[in-house]
Amino acid sequence: MADYEIFELGQVALQCGLTLPQTKLAYKTYGELNAQRDNVIVMPTFYGGQIAENETAMAGWRSLDPKKYFIVIPNLFGNGLSSSPSNTAPPFDRAVFPHVTIFDNVVCQHRLLTEHLGVKRIKLVLGFSMGAQQAYQWATLYPDMVETIAPICGSARTSPHNFLFLEGVKAALTADAAFAEGWYQTPPVKGLRAFARVYMGWCFSQDFFREHEYRKMGLASLEDSVRFLEGYFRRHDANDLLAMLWTWQHADLSANSTYKGDFVAALKAIKARALVMPGNTDLYFRTRDNELEVAQMRNAELRPIPSIWGHVAGLGVYPPDNEFIDAGLKELLGAD
Amino acid sequence: MADYEIFELGQVALQCGLTLPQTKLAYKTYGELNAQRDNVIVMPTFYGGQIAENETAMAGWRSLDPKKYFIVIPNLFGNGLSSSPSNTAPPFDRAVFPHVTIFDNVVCQHRLLTEHLGVKRIKLVLGFSMGAQQAYQWATLYPDMVETIAPICGSARTSPHNFLFLEGVKAALTADAAFAEGWYQTPPVKGLRAFARVYMGWCFSQDFFREHEYRKMGLASLEDSVRFLEGYFRRHDANDLLAMLWTWQHADLSANSTYKGDFVAALKAIKARALVMPGNTDLYFRTRDNELEVAQMRNAELRPIPSIWGHVAGLGVYPPDNEFIDAGLKELLGAD
Repeated sequence: MADYEIFELGQVALQCGLTLPQTKLAYKTYGELNAQRDNVIVMPTFYGGQIAENETAMAGWRSLDPKKYFIVIPNLFGNGLSSSPSNTAPPFDRAVFPHVTIFDNVVCQHRLLTEHLGVKRIKLVLGFSMGAQQAYQWATLYPDMVETIAPICGSARTSPHNFLFLEGVKAALTADAAFAEGWYQTPPVKGLRAFARVYMGWCFSQDFFREHEYRKMGLASLEDSVRFLEGYFRRHDANDLLAMLWTWQHADLSANSTYKGDFVAALKAIKARALVMPGNTDLYFRTRDNELEVAQMRNAELRPIPSIWGHVAGLGVYPPDNEFIDAGLKELLGAD
Repeated sequence: MADYEIFELGQVALQCGLTLPQTKLAYKTYGELNAQRDNVIVMPTFYGGQIAENETAMAGWRSLDPKKYFIVIPNLFGNGLSSSPSNTAPPFDRAVFPHVTIFDNVVCQHRLLTEHLGVKRIKLVLGFSMGAQQAYQWATLYPDMVETIAPICGSARTSPHNFLFLEGVKAALTADAAFAEGWYQTPPVKGLRAFARVYMGWCFSQDFFREHEYRKMGLASLEDSVRFLEGYFRRHDANDLLAMLWTWQHADLSANSTYKGDFVAALKAIKARALVMPGNTDLYFRTRDNELEVAQMRNAELRPIPSIWGHVAGLGVYPPDNEFIDAGLKELLGAD
């Protein structure tokens, strides 16, 4: 039995111009909505992350306490639980699943919160990586609904270099002829393994490996670390990975009819208090990108995580990084 | 007609235990050896670089003046000019070309210099990237022969993360079934293209792309930049690329019978004055690695190149970086 719920969105008109029938948004809630309906936290998911990984982060960031807060985890389209290439019927299945944007994701999440869960105000939207991109999108689309945001190791818009890094992992996966333009009958294992091997160079810092930090994850060697990441990605369908990758590559909080590509205007529209926490050794979501964003925001603070865990500093798995992030979340929540 | 010469090494016993017959070392010289034989500069080649690329660097670093110096460029085994998978006869051809180390390369270059060119002292060994690795190797193997070295964007030993980056590009290339374990009849184009696309994320800095610095190379877009690198790599045979990649991954100036893996001892044995110039935004040959090396050397200075061109800062193509490097070379050469 699935440990999550499905919100049936019906037909969804996507930004790309295609209309996805019977669209499903997978989500899970923790705690109870209080009488004042003012204890809501939303934590959208990151690339490849599902319920279990988000629960790990919640355990590490103790301010996210289900005894006090009503916490909602909506799953990214393409992650295998919400509508994805792997679980959608023809003519939108597999290689022809439509391109879905961060905007599409957040508009659907807003429907879940308002139409289904009866939420009117959100105390905090936080997220790691692509989750951070969704937090930015929430705050600019619904400025009067979102009180605070905590984008962790993520940006409001995917930078050119970040786009290029993703081009690399995509090229590694699709170089495998078994991928067959997405119409494979059995998983393109060689391509998936290459995808993970390329990805591994990016997701921690260079120093992480020199200092053998992977040992703190119970991994004995560099090759053990590669296999660990292979396990993370190989449980996913290849088309699902590519669908989320497209969403990531095209993330831009202003790419919608409200802001028409005016990036600065979209940032200025954010009313939420923002605590932006990049990893100071992250190789693709860079502190510099957040710095440029924060300079345009009304009420934002940049607070880099001092860590050699690179991007993974924000994943919620390493106790010292978790302490740092949790202190920030505690401030935003005004908790004791 | 080839614009380089071949030094016939005959049978060469390699560190891996295999003996390569009719081994060829391609090289080119510029200028004349003076009567005192004290004007010799050696510049070993970098990954994928051949004569033309090194001549570009020489033009950019004006201290390398053939009117004053006798400059020797020995080509790396595997680069398609010296013995390589693509130009060696069975049973050492193509997929079964032996693993060649930086040590093997430098021992053969030493034979070229001493047996063939009549050189006894070298004023400067400099090199970019894998060329820098060879400069370190020269200085520790022949401490009384080498007066100064300038390792540019390269380390004495390949770091774990650098190894991992190379695992990624290798995985992208070999994910293509057309690679056929190295026994392809036609080039594995899809794999070579994936190789270049992954590589592109690494060879410049993140800021390089945000600032559109590629325009200074006459490239209009991110995709133009990827195609540019594709051109650089696709002129090479896939097995050649993998042969040089193996050499790079296993670079360690102490991995030989002289130093038996004692990295510190090998660094301490260097007598040459060393000016070590990493790129301060290089993503794989890191300043931190050079810093740890310099701390163990007798007469070494660390002088990072302030540039957002990443690794390419040391390639000899961007005038401001060239000026910085050239000033350092001028100091080493004691030139006017």
